[in-house]
Amino acid sequence: MRAVIAPEPGGPEALKLVETPDPTPGPGEALVRVEATALNRADLMQRKGHYPPPPGASEALGLELAGTVIALGAGARGWAVGDEAMAVVSGGGYAELAAVPASCLLPVPTGVSLIEAAAIPEVFTTVYDNMLLRGRLAGGETVLVHGGSSGIGTAAIQLARRAGARVLVTASSQAKLEAAARLGAEVGIDYTTQDFVVAAREATDGRGVNVILDVVGGRYLARNLDALALEGRLVIIGLQGGAEAEVNLGQMLSRRLSVAASSLRARSVEEKAGLAERMRRVVLPGFSDGTLRPVIDRVLSLDEVAEAHRLMDAGDHIGKIVLQVG
Amino acid sequence: MRAVIAPEPGGPEALKLVETPDPTPGPGEALVRVEATALNRADLMQRKGHYPPPPGASEALGLELAGTVIALGAGARGWAVGDEAMAVVSGGGYAELAAVPASCLLPVPTGVSLIEAAAIPEVFTTVYDNMLLRGRLAGGETVLVHGGSSGIGTAAIQLARRAGARVLVTASSQAKLEAAARLGAEVGIDYTTQDFVVAAREATDGRGVNVILDVVGGRYLARNLDALALEGRLVIIGLQGGAEAEVNLGQMLSRRLSVAASSLRARSVEEKAGLAERMRRVVLPGFSDGTLRPVIDRVLSLDEVAEAHRLMDAGDHIGKIVLQVG
Repeated sequence: MRAVIAPEPGGPEALKLVETPDPTPGPGEALVRVEATALNRADLMQRKGHYPPPPGASEALGLELAGTVIALGAGARGWAVGDEAMAVVSGGGYAELAAVPASCLLPVPTGVSLIEAAAIPEVFTTVYDNMLLRGRLAGGETVLVHGGSSGIGTAAIQLARRAGARVLVTASSQAKLEAAARLGAEVGIDYTTQDFVVAAREATDGRGVNVILDVVGGRYLARNLDALALEGRLVIIGLQGGAEAEVNLGQMLSRRLSVAASSLRARSVEEKAGLAERMRRVVLPGFSDGTLRPVIDRVLSLDEVAEAHRLMDAGDHIGKIVLQVG
Repeated sequence: MRAVIAPEPGGPEALKLVETPDPTPGPGEALVRVEATALNRADLMQRKGHYPPPPGASEALGLELAGTVIALGAGARGWAVGDEAMAVVSGGGYAELAAVPASCLLPVPTGVSLIEAAAIPEVFTTVYDNMLLRGRLAGGETVLVHGGSSGIGTAAIQLARRAGARVLVTASSQAKLEAAARLGAEVGIDYTTQDFVVAAREATDGRGVNVILDVVGGRYLARNLDALALEGRLVIIGLQGGAEAEVNLGQMLSRRLSVAASSLRARSVEEKAGLAERMRRVVLPGFSDGTLRPVIDRVLSLDEVAEAHRLMDAGDHIGKIVLQVG
């Protein structure tokens, strides 16, 4: 099969579309013929050599996929050959075939194409797990989403609105803020010209926000805590602004704040399966009832993977960049 | 009435037992004739001038009390004159009379005296709120309690055991560790001679603990994170080791850790009433069914308040130091 690997760290040109052995489904695994995959920021880090695959994961890039089940390993339950499915994977999405634990597969919601489905698993699972489960965002509360036009941002706005929460977003341009507004973000903050702490306080009568979904990490930690309301929860899912920071525990204690951080990739199959089960029950119905949709900037072919990475490096996209594989 | 104030910051001798005007119960308040109060570490900080009462709180020290309702303000519901009650208060426990929001009063559990009851509200409410609600300690999990022989520690051991969790404690002497063991702590760590991170990992087959209840703060932050298992929760309720610290968000993200901090005193009456309602429903039955008991080091009279503070400053007590007022 054809698959995209990054044998040497580097820019988009470091990506190589190569012929590799077909995977075979192990016990409990389904073999999926991949119709489409999508880019995640972690893919750029992996390409640069900063985010090696966890033990046992495919050498090929790609953290999500959608396609058709074409074979089942021993003991793989719940799926039949011919079923359409989508999944978060620990690697190997940029490939024609992928062996995926059957317990981690998600059904493709009614009315969603496989191309569209490829843009769903990683960001909606990440946001559900972090903003709703860890952050416990509730109806009537306010969330601040950093990077409101990213794949994560576009998923977060929709999941927050669906939960009955108010959404504030940051982004780096008016075009991005307008895209976020169309998805339901009530307040847009251009972080290149505005102080998000001031803007978040102004938008909440001085109280601050209840939850922040953050991809910046260290560089934003103190300001994120400043922007939280009493009992506020900061959930960190990326470290684009570094991992080390000073924290003022006195501020956290007197305002009763919490900070949680998490990543999806290195979890055990059991943990991912548990999350997939909840996704299926709680989130996926939203794609059929019209409250959720994947936001896709554009669809390129697997041959165009370097161009796709260039686009994501440039950062002018809105929503997900999808690679059609099949 | 007589009450203890600290007109000038200082040592135990700075405490003055003075005659002050009787409080009158405002709307929604009950007037309680205080039979006993108990010391908390925050009282020592207030005496030293580091922890001023929040706006509207009594000038007198004391964050908890037990006694008898002797009058009710307008609209004070759920209580009758003559009822015995105990409560967390934002100040004014070291006094013969206290006006307390009726919604924050707790019933004295069957079989518990008013002297014993005075040792319950602050530590059991704090531990319930932090270790069980914020920390979500669950049956089968392991908790590390710093300061296992303190009032907080003795409450935490019992509440954790009652929740079906395993308990590790730190303390500064064998006598304190033995007291903690008698309450149900399975592993005692003498932090003056042992590295608690190493000991916690050894006691958990290398995995680390699921929850840490911490009163040290800054000085322990990095080591507490090191001692946590995957998905571990650190809950900070004191800053005896400072408020400022470096945090490694990369470690938090890859191990999916969270840090929460909180204090009880400055919360609104509504928040305290909500917590009291949950205490009443979830925790108080434990004092009648024999699974929980206040651990009291000794009982002194209100006249001996300076001696009581000296004892707590010295730190050789096990459990709570109670002041009999009535």
